[in-house]
Amino acid sequence: MALEKLRKEETLAMRKRLIGQSLRLFYSEDPVKIVRARGQYLFDESGKRYLDCISNVHHVGHCHPRITKAAAAQMELLNTNSRFLHDNIVLYADRLAATLPERLCVFYFVNSGSEANDLALRLSRQYTQHEDVIVIDHAYHGHLMSLIDISPYKFRKLAGQKEWVHVAPLPDTYRGIYQEGHPNPGQAYADTVKDLIEEVHSKGRKVHFNTDPYSFTKICDIQNSHRYTETHGVSRYVRSAGGVFVADEVQTGFGRVGNHFWAFQLQGEDFCPDIVTMGKPMGNGHPLACVATTAEIARAFTDNGVEYFNTFGGNPVSCAIGMAVLDVIEEEDLRGNAIRVGAHLKDLLAKLQTRHEIIGDIRGVGLFVGLELVTDKEKKTPATERAAWVVKRLKEEHQICVSTDGPWESVVKFKPPMCFSMEDAELVVQCIDGILTASFYLAEHVASFYSTLITGGDSLFELCVTCNSSLSGHCV
Amino acid sequence: MALEKLRKEETLAMRKRLIGQSLRLFYSEDPVKIVRARGQYLFDESGKRYLDCISNVHHVGHCHPRITKAAAAQMELLNTNSRFLHDNIVLYADRLAATLPERLCVFYFVNSGSEANDLALRLSRQYTQHEDVIVIDHAYHGHLMSLIDISPYKFRKLAGQKEWVHVAPLPDTYRGIYQEGHPNPGQAYADTVKDLIEEVHSKGRKVHFNTDPYSFTKICDIQNSHRYTETHGVSRYVRSAGGVFVADEVQTGFGRVGNHFWAFQLQGEDFCPDIVTMGKPMGNGHPLACVATTAEIARAFTDNGVEYFNTFGGNPVSCAIGMAVLDVIEEEDLRGNAIRVGAHLKDLLAKLQTRHEIIGDIRGVGLFVGLELVTDKEKKTPATERAAWVVKRLKEEHQICVSTDGPWESVVKFKPPMCFSMEDAELVVQCIDGILTASFYLAEHVASFYSTLITGGDSLFELCVTCNSSLSGHCV
Repeated sequence: MALEKLRKEETLAMRKRLIGQSLRLFYSEDPVKIVRARGQYLFDESGKRYLDCISNVHHVGHCHPRITKAAAAQMELLNTNSRFLHDNIVLYADRLAATLPERLCVFYFVNSGSEANDLALRLSRQYTQHEDVIVIDHAYHGHLMSLIDISPYKFRKLAGQKEWVHVAPLPDTYRGIYQEGHPNPGQAYADTVKDLIEEVHSKGRKVHFNTDPYSFTKICDIQNSHRYTETHGVSRYVRSAGGVFVADEVQTGFGRVGNHFWAFQLQGEDFCPDIVTMGKPMGNGHPLACVATTAEIARAFTDNGVEYFNTFGGNPVSCAIGMAVLDVIEEEDLRGNAIRVGAHLKDLLAKLQTRHEIIGDIRGVGLFVGLELVTDKEKKTPATERAAWVVKRLKEEHQICVSTDGPWESVVKFKPPMCFSMEDAELVVQCIDGILTASFYLAEHVASFYSTLITGGDSLFELCVTCNSSLSGHCV
Repeated sequence: MALEKLRKEETLAMRKRLIGQSLRLFYSEDPVKIVRARGQYLFDESGKRYLDCISNVHHVGHCHPRITKAAAAQMELLNTNSRFLHDNIVLYADRLAATLPERLCVFYFVNSGSEANDLALRLSRQYTQHEDVIVIDHAYHGHLMSLIDISPYKFRKLAGQKEWVHVAPLPDTYRGIYQEGHPNPGQAYADTVKDLIEEVHSKGRKVHFNTDPYSFTKICDIQNSHRYTETHGVSRYVRSAGGVFVADEVQTGFGRVGNHFWAFQLQGEDFCPDIVTMGKPMGNGHPLACVATTAEIARAFTDNGVEYFNTFGGNPVSCAIGMAVLDVIEEEDLRGNAIRVGAHLKDLLAKLQTRHEIIGDIRGVGLFVGLELVTDKEKKTPATERAAWVVKRLKEEHQICVSTDGPWESVVKFKPPMCFSMEDAELVVQCIDGILTASFYLAEHVASFYSTLITGGDSLFELCVTCNSSLSGHCV
């Protein structure tokens, strides 16, 4: 194929040799080579089409012609840095301001969600003159050193918890310390932050930063829980301790949740964070991210007298792309689509749940939906292997790309490009139904092999053949 | 003008309102609005052309059609993330590998020089299991929290020096502790690093990281000094202390120094750092950066078992742009141009120095050249105000953009797009000659106003008119 410059084996061999192995491949045992994409579809080197439920970054659809056109037109004209005056940066900031509460009116453009969160830390530390940070358990805020320190998801596996980092429990009403039966889990979880602040104060320390535990961690990491609660309460506690409230909207912003442009707006029109960070979908794949904050916080940062310059941040091309993304979200009513298709997907999954014991929980908002698998519905035992097996079957049998997530990788996650259709949702659910049915049937039929089954799907087909059951239709 | 969407006053007002003021404008008292650029030229909203001696990022020339074409073609096809297998990332890594010593054979793609330096810190800390870092005075490694900690240029103005950061003197043979008269300043400066390591060890600490004090800080920050010396010695000391040697080539790489593709290669073919970071010119303005390291260091990082994923890093569009930049450097012999034009520029400036007492020093390599102004040649007193005045005159009278740098902002810095021509160099030097002549003549003629003159150029024209001298031709 003309689109392929190397044979796949050669690409793979060069990748192993030249690219740091810490960067992992999807489907590492049999990676997919994608050479072309359009909308919600990926195409491999042989022309095979995959339905993409993974690429939240390619928000308005892969290779949207409007975005390419806007990028190329601006690249032909000018792509200098933001120390020169230019219309695009101010027009784009103005467009973003229109989506946010009035208080969030000052913008800093950067190149990645990680750069945005690092800057948010600097801004809030400068403003509050406090050092400590409260984050929510399992949160991930980025790959930079400063962010690994505040990401329990990473620091538990690496350097460990710093003395200035405090972890509040994940407000998870499925498995957390306050569950669905609790009279007011929202308030109860908010109170854990209050208690944590008191504990921090008792050590003579002061909190400056709290990452949004509800609109951020909860909706973003849909693997973890699904009820967003008393963010108002949390922000009140944090502010009265002299801290600021940061909403990390790197994954959840730009209409992903459907009803609102930003996930924090799910808390009601009257709720406003002090800092909002944004990234992934912002440039539809182009490296573009941003921090929005209040005039007071920006002023404190300016008053330190030190310049903040980001070489590529806010350049005319990035801003032109950012504006084109906003145009497409509006013109193609992608938020409306996220509401409709997301609701349909959740409905279909809910119906599936009545027929499959393995489905423990369904959660999410808009086109950010998770399906948690459990081996025991009462004990909520994470079905990690089975989730991996579903991902593998979806790819191999149906050319559907999904990924898993969550503390136990037991959640099948849907965060497709926002042009994902009703038919796409129906197809995915139908395919999952087939896979789970085969799995269930097998589990019943080949009871003695059940333990093998849940520890990996690789030998499954052989097992069926071995036992001479007529299950191959289900398995393959 | 069609290229202008807002009137300049409106752009400026919106910028003040919407963009964090920590991001400063060039010529802040009368900013330039650039709407179009090509090669080494910038054009403002009225069509006025400026010669650009600032934009090292736009390495192969502003809006090079080859780069735009490569970007648009790949954007139309695919821009997914690096968890999918793709030819561009491996082909690009292979191209970069060909420019580097064989040992530097593993690559990590990121979005900015800052992200690259942060990752270099993580890699080296993981590999050495040591905590401490040696950096060179006045160095700047980026805007992230982790990098401000290791950038004396920034931390002196902000949080101060961390106990794990150690600052070696700048190997500056113009103003430093060992100057031109010293028998072997290179070895003497290398020994300061040796001494520093001993001091660190005596505290029971261990160094893991040393940023290249010669090819990096020295050539890059040409404002500081101009003789690169015993990097071999430094790297030997650092390695024998169990540390690694990092060459920050974010500013100096990709042929900027002319004779070599990388500035560290000025140390000889047998010198090889353990980690090289690259950024600014890599994507000709597109957010693209990279870390190259050895197989051993990469393996130690992989062995920590934690994934490193960078959402945009190494995507097919970034890599296509990166390869197009390499193509243009080769095809247009931009390194050859940097050698020829850079040498010519330095020659012309050297001739100027014989006629202008204010020129204290000329330094640099290839198309990275600095001109230091001093008010007293013996005392080497930095002529900060005068340097600012030269920058202002060059812009206002001749539409030439240069910037100042150095600890006292006393160095006029040239780091133009690499297509900068002989004629451009001649024009710049001729204009500086005129400005310095006017300045000198004025200083002599209006001796009593000298102090006013060096504290700012704004009132200069009026002064001349006031004293009725016929200097307006020189001043304006």
